[in-house]
Amino acid sequence: MEGLLTINNVWMMICTALVFFMHLGFAFLEIGLTRQKNTINILFKNVFIITMGLLLYGLLGFNLMYPGDFNGYLGFAGFGLSAPLVDGALDLAYSEGYTYWTDFLFQGMFAATAATIVSGAVAERIKINSFMIFVVIYVGLVYPIAGSWKWGGGFLDEMGFYDFAGSTLVHSVGGWGALIAIWLLGARIGKFKDGKIGAFPGHSMPMATAGVIILWLGWFGFNGGSVLSADPGLTSLTLVTTCLAAAAGGVSSFIFSSLLYKNYDITMYLNGILGGLVGITAGADQMSPTDAILIGVIAGVIIVLGVALVDRLRLDDPVGAVAVHLICGIWGTLAVGIFGNLAGVDQFVTQLIGVGCYAAICVVSSFLIFYILKITIGLRVSAKEETEGLDIHEHGMDAYPDFGLNQQ
Amino acid sequence: MEGLLTINNVWMMICTALVFFMHLGFAFLEIGLTRQKNTINILFKNVFIITMGLLLYGLLGFNLMYPGDFNGYLGFAGFGLSAPLVDGALDLAYSEGYTYWTDFLFQGMFAATAATIVSGAVAERIKINSFMIFVVIYVGLVYPIAGSWKWGGGFLDEMGFYDFAGSTLVHSVGGWGALIAIWLLGARIGKFKDGKIGAFPGHSMPMATAGVIILWLGWFGFNGGSVLSADPGLTSLTLVTTCLAAAAGGVSSFIFSSLLYKNYDITMYLNGILGGLVGITAGADQMSPTDAILIGVIAGVIIVLGVALVDRLRLDDPVGAVAVHLICGIWGTLAVGIFGNLAGVDQFVTQLIGVGCYAAICVVSSFLIFYILKITIGLRVSAKEETEGLDIHEHGMDAYPDFGLNQQ
Amino acid sequence: MEGLLTINNVWMMICTALVFFMHLGFAFLEIGLTRQKNTINILFKNVFIITMGLLLYGLLGFNLMYPGDFNGYLGFAGFGLSAPLVDGALDLAYSEGYTYWTDFLFQGMFAATAATIVSGAVAERIKINSFMIFVVIYVGLVYPIAGSWKWGGGFLDEMGFYDFAGSTLVHSVGGWGALIAIWLLGARIGKFKDGKIGAFPGHSMPMATAGVIILWLGWFGFNGGSVLSADPGLTSLTLVTTCLAAAAGGVSSFIFSSLLYKNYDITMYLNGILGGLVGITAGADQMSPTDAILIGVIAGVIIVLGVALVDRLRLDDPVGAVAVHLICGIWGTLAVGIFGNLAGVDQFVTQLIGVGCYAAICVVSSFLIFYILKITIGLRVSAKEETEGLDIHEHGMDAYPDFGLNQQ
Repeated sequence: MEGLLTINNVWMMICTALVFFMHLGFAFLEIGLTRQKNTINILFKNVFIITMGLLLYGLLGFNLMYPGDFNGYLGFAGFGLSAPLVDGALDLAYSEGYTYWTDFLFQGMFAATAATIVSGAVAERIKINSFMIFVVIYVGLVYPIAGSWKWGGGFLDEMGFYDFAGSTLVHSVGGWGALIAIWLLGARIGKFKDGKIGAFPGHSMPMATAGVIILWLGWFGFNGGSVLSADPGLTSLTLVTTCLAAAAGGVSSFIFSSLLYKNYDITMYLNGILGGLVGITAGADQMSPTDAILIGVIAGVIIVLGVALVDRLRLDDPVGAVAVHLICGIWGTLAVGIFGNLAGVDQFVTQLIGVGCYAAICVVSSFLIFYILKITIGLRVSAKEETEGLDIHEHGMDAYPDFGLNQQ
Repeated sequence: MEGLLTINNVWMMICTALVFFMHLGFAFLEIGLTRQKNTINILFKNVFIITMGLLLYGLLGFNLMYPGDFNGYLGFAGFGLSAPLVDGALDLAYSEGYTYWTDFLFQGMFAATAATIVSGAVAERIKINSFMIFVVIYVGLVYPIAGSWKWGGGFLDEMGFYDFAGSTLVHSVGGWGALIAIWLLGARIGKFKDGKIGAFPGHSMPMATAGVIILWLGWFGFNGGSVLSADPGLTSLTLVTTCLAAAAGGVSSFIFSSLLYKNYDITMYLNGILGGLVGITAGADQMSPTDAILIGVIAGVIIVLGVALVDRLRLDDPVGAVAVHLICGIWGTLAVGIFGNLAGVDQFVTQLIGVGCYAAICVVSSFLIFYILKITIGLRVSAKEETEGLDIHEHGMDAYPDFGLNQQ
Repeated sequence: MEGLLTINNVWMMICTALVFFMHLGFAFLEIGLTRQKNTINILFKNVFIITMGLLLYGLLGFNLMYPGDFNGYLGFAGFGLSAPLVDGALDLAYSEGYTYWTDFLFQGMFAATAATIVSGAVAERIKINSFMIFVVIYVGLVYPIAGSWKWGGGFLDEMGFYDFAGSTLVHSVGGWGALIAIWLLGARIGKFKDGKIGAFPGHSMPMATAGVIILWLGWFGFNGGSVLSADPGLTSLTLVTTCLAAAAGGVSSFIFSSLLYKNYDITMYLNGILGGLVGITAGADQMSPTDAILIGVIAGVIIVLGVALVDRLRLDDPVGAVAVHLICGIWGTLAVGIFGNLAGVDQFVTQLIGVGCYAAICVVSSFLIFYILKITIGLRVSAKEETEGLDIHEHGMDAYPDFGLNQQ
C-alpha cells in the first residue's frame, strides 16, 4: 500500500533531519566544554565532518555498508548512488519503510557521527589537516565496512549479534577511535602536572547544556528512525525507553557524583544523560520502561567512574567522549544480553563477541591511521600554537572577535 | 485502519519531540534574562526538571492524571507504567490517535513544563535543594491531580470546562506556583530599594530571543499535539491560530510598550509573543484567525500591564513568569467564553469556575510546600551566596570559566 | 482518500515548522557576523519580520500571491483569510496535499524570509523605523505580487519558468532588495578607508555556525515542503539533492578560499553551505545527486568570488547576503536550464527571462521604497549612533548587560 510507504517515509525523513541536527548538539557540547581559544577550530572540524562525511558516504560509504549479497566481511556495490528504477521512475518497492533516497540520507547522517565523537576527544591540540585525513578514511572506509558486518547483513548479523541503533556500530566505533587518538596524541599541556590533574573547565556551560538537549532531541530520530518504519508500537516504545534511560542516566550521575564529590556538577549531569542515551541505543526496541531506567541508572554510575578512570590512566579527554561513547556503548551492547526480550547467556556471549570484533577493527585501523599521520605530517600542533590557541594559528581569527574587551 | 493510527501516532511523536525541545527554550529564556553569576544554577534546575519530571510522571503522575474511572476529584491507577496488551503485544486499539507509549511520553513532556515556569520566577535566590523538593511534589502530585479534573475526565470536564492545551492546566498551574513562591521568597537584594525598582537586565539577549523562538516552535507541538490526532483540519487550524496569536501578541506588546515607555524594548516584544501563545492555548482549536489575532493583541497589552503590576506589588519575577503564564493563562481560559465556537455566558461562567478551582488547589498546595520548606530547611540562599552568585556557591563553578577575562 | 491527505498534511505542517525555525538560523547568523553593539537591533528586526510578516501575509499577502483566476500580473482575492467551507466545515477537497490552513501558514513562513535576507545586509547602520516600513511594504506587497507571477499561476508560470522552492522567488527577491539597500545606505563607517577594506569580523562564530546548521535543517522543510505533498520519491530525492548541494557548496568554498587566501576561514565554509542550499533550491526536485553536487561546487566558488566582488564594488554587506542569496539565487535558477530533467536551451532562456523579470520588479520597488525613505525620514542612523551602537541608542540597552565586565 503506497499510503503506508508514504507515512513510513515521512517518519524516516523527520528522523533524518533530527539526526542531522545532532551535529549542532555535538558542536555546542564540544565548544562548551573546551577553551575559548580553540572554538573556531572545533566548529570547523564539525562542519567539515558533516559536509565531507555526506559526500564520502554518497561516493562509497553507502555501498560499502550495504553491499547487497557479500561474503559477510567486505563487499562493495560500486561508486556513487544508483537508485533502483522501474520504467525510469524510482522503484518504490525498494522497501516498505523508506525510499532509496531516504535510506541513503538517514544512514549518511549516522556515518558522520562516529567521526564527530573523535573530534571532541582530540580537541585543543590536534593538527586540523591530520584530523581531516583521519575523518576521510574513518568515515569513508572504516565505519561503513565495520557497519556492514551487522547492518549490512554480514557475519555478525548472521551470528545473532544485536545492535538496534548503534551503541557499538556508531558510538563505540567513535569511542575506540577517540581512545587511540588521545593515547597517541598525549595530553594537553598542563593537564597532568606534578601528579595532579589540571582543571580545564571549558568556556560556556549554556552551550554545553544546549548541546546535550539538542542531542537528546536528535536521539528521537537516531533511535526512533532505527525502527526503519513508523510502526506505531515499536517507534513509540523506542522513544519511551530512550527518554527514560536519558532521564535515569542524568539523575543517577547527578546523585552518584554529588555523593562522591559533594558538588552539584552540571557536566556530570549532562554526561549522565548522554551515557543513558548511548546505553539504551543497542536495545531501545527490546526493553521495558523499567529495563530502560535500570540501564540508564547504571550508565550514570559508569559515567562518573569512567571519567575518573580515564583521568587516572593519564588520558586527556576534554569532553568525556571515551566514558560516554566507548564505555557506555559497550555497556549498552552487553545490556541487550542482560535485560529485555533478548536477555540470555547465549545472547550475552554473542554481544561480547560483537564488542570484541568492533574493538579489533577500530583499534587496529585508528592506530594505523593516527600512527602513520604521527610519523609523517605529525598529529599535534606546536606548543606555541596550543598555548596561544588553534583559532588564531589555524584560522587566523578569534571566535569572538568583537565581543567584550575585543569590541570595536 | 492501522494506517491512520500510524499517521496520527507519527504526528503525536513529533509533537512530543517539539514539546521536549521547549525545555531548551525555557532554559535559554531564563538564563538570558538573569545574571551571569546564576547561569549554571538555572541550567541545573532545568535539567533536573526534565529528567526527574519524566521519571516521576512514569512512576505515578501518568496514573494520577489519567486514572480511568474515578470519582472526578482524585484517582490513582497504580505505580509505574502498564501498557495494555493483547496476546502479549501492545494493544493498538488503545486509541485511534496514538499508542499507549506515545500518550505517556507526550503527557510526560507537558508535566515538566509547569515546574519550569516556577523555575524562572524564583531564579537567582532560591536554595536548589528546596527547589528540587518542590519540583518532586509539584510535578509528581499536584500537577497530575489538578490535571485529572479536566483532562482525566474529572468533575471540571463533566461541568463543560474547556482548556484545549493548557492555558490553565499547565500555564496557570505553573503561574500560581510562581506567584506564591516569589511572595514567600522575597525580592532579590537591591530589586526594590528606597521606593525604586532596580533594573536587573539579564546577561544575554540573544539567548532570551532564541529561547522565545524555540518556545514558539515547541508550541507547534504543544497545541498541535493537543488535537490528539493528526486530523488535518483541526491540527492545521490550531497551528494557524497559534502562530497568529503569537505574532499579534508580540506586535501588540511592542507597540503598546513603545508608546508607554518610548523605547523599542526587545524583552517586551518577546514576552508579548509568549503572552499571545499562552493566551491562545486554551482555545486554539475553537478560534478563527481573527479571534486568534484579537486574543493575541489583548494578551500583548496584558503583558505590558502585568509586568508593571507585579513590580508595583513589590513582587520580584526576573523573567515575567506571572504576567506571561498566570495572567495570560487566565486570560486565555476566559477568552474561550468570549471568542470562537464556544463563546457564551454559560461557558464564560464555567471557565471562571475552572480558573477558580485551579487557583485554589495551586495556591494552597504551593503555599504548603514552600511554607514548610521555608520554616524547615529554608527557601533562600544567604545574602553572601546571592551576592556572589549561586554558581560558585552551589555548583563550585562559573558558567563561562574560560571566557573573556577568565581565559587561560 | 482522507488518509493520504492526513499524511501529506502532516509532512507539510512539519515543513512549516522547520521553515519557521529558519528565523532563528537567520538571527544567529546575522548577529554572529556583526558587532556586539548592534545585537539587540538585529534581533529586534528579526522578531519584527516574523511577527508582522505573518500578520501581513494573513491580511493581504496570501490573497495577492494566490489570487485564483487573474490576468497573470496582478490579482487580489480580498482582505483576510477565508477558508473554503462545505456544510460549515473546512473543505478538505481544497488540495490532496494540504489543507487551506496549512497552505497559508507554509506560504506565510516563506514570505517573511525575503525581508530577513535584507536585514542582514543593512545591519549596523539602518534606522529601525525605516527598515520596519520597508518590511511592511516588501513583505505585504512586493513579495506576494512578484510571487504570483510564478507560484500563483501568473505569466511566468504560463511561460514555463521553473523555480521549485524559490532560488528566485524568495532568495533573489531578498537579494535584490539587499543590493539596492546597501547601495543607497552606503558602507559602515571605516569599512572602506584609504582604498583599504576594513575587517569587521562579527562577535560570535559559534552563533554564526549554529545559524547555518539551523538554516540547513530548516531547508529540509523549505525544499522538502515545496513538493507540496509527502510524495515519497520526490520528497526524499529533494532532501538528498538539498543536503548534497549544501555539503558540496561548503567543501568547495572551503577548498577554493583556502587555496586563494591560505587560511581555513570558517565564514567562507558557512557561506559556501548557504550558497549550495540557495543554488539547489530552484531545481531540487529535478536534479540527480551528481547534478546537485556540481551545482553546489559551483555555488561554493561563486560565494568566494561574489564576496570579493561586492567588496570590490565598495558595497558593504556585513553577512554576505548579496553573494549568497542574490548571486547564488540567480545561479540556481539558471542551473535548472543546464542540469537535470529540464536542461535545455529553451528552458535556459526562459529561466533568464524569469530572472530578469524579478530583477525588474525588485530593483524598481526597493529603489522606490528606500529612496523615498531616504529623502523623507532618512535611512541611516547618525554617525554617533553608529559608532556607539544601535542597541544603546534605539533600544536603550546592551545585548549582554550583565556579562563579563558588565557583571553586577
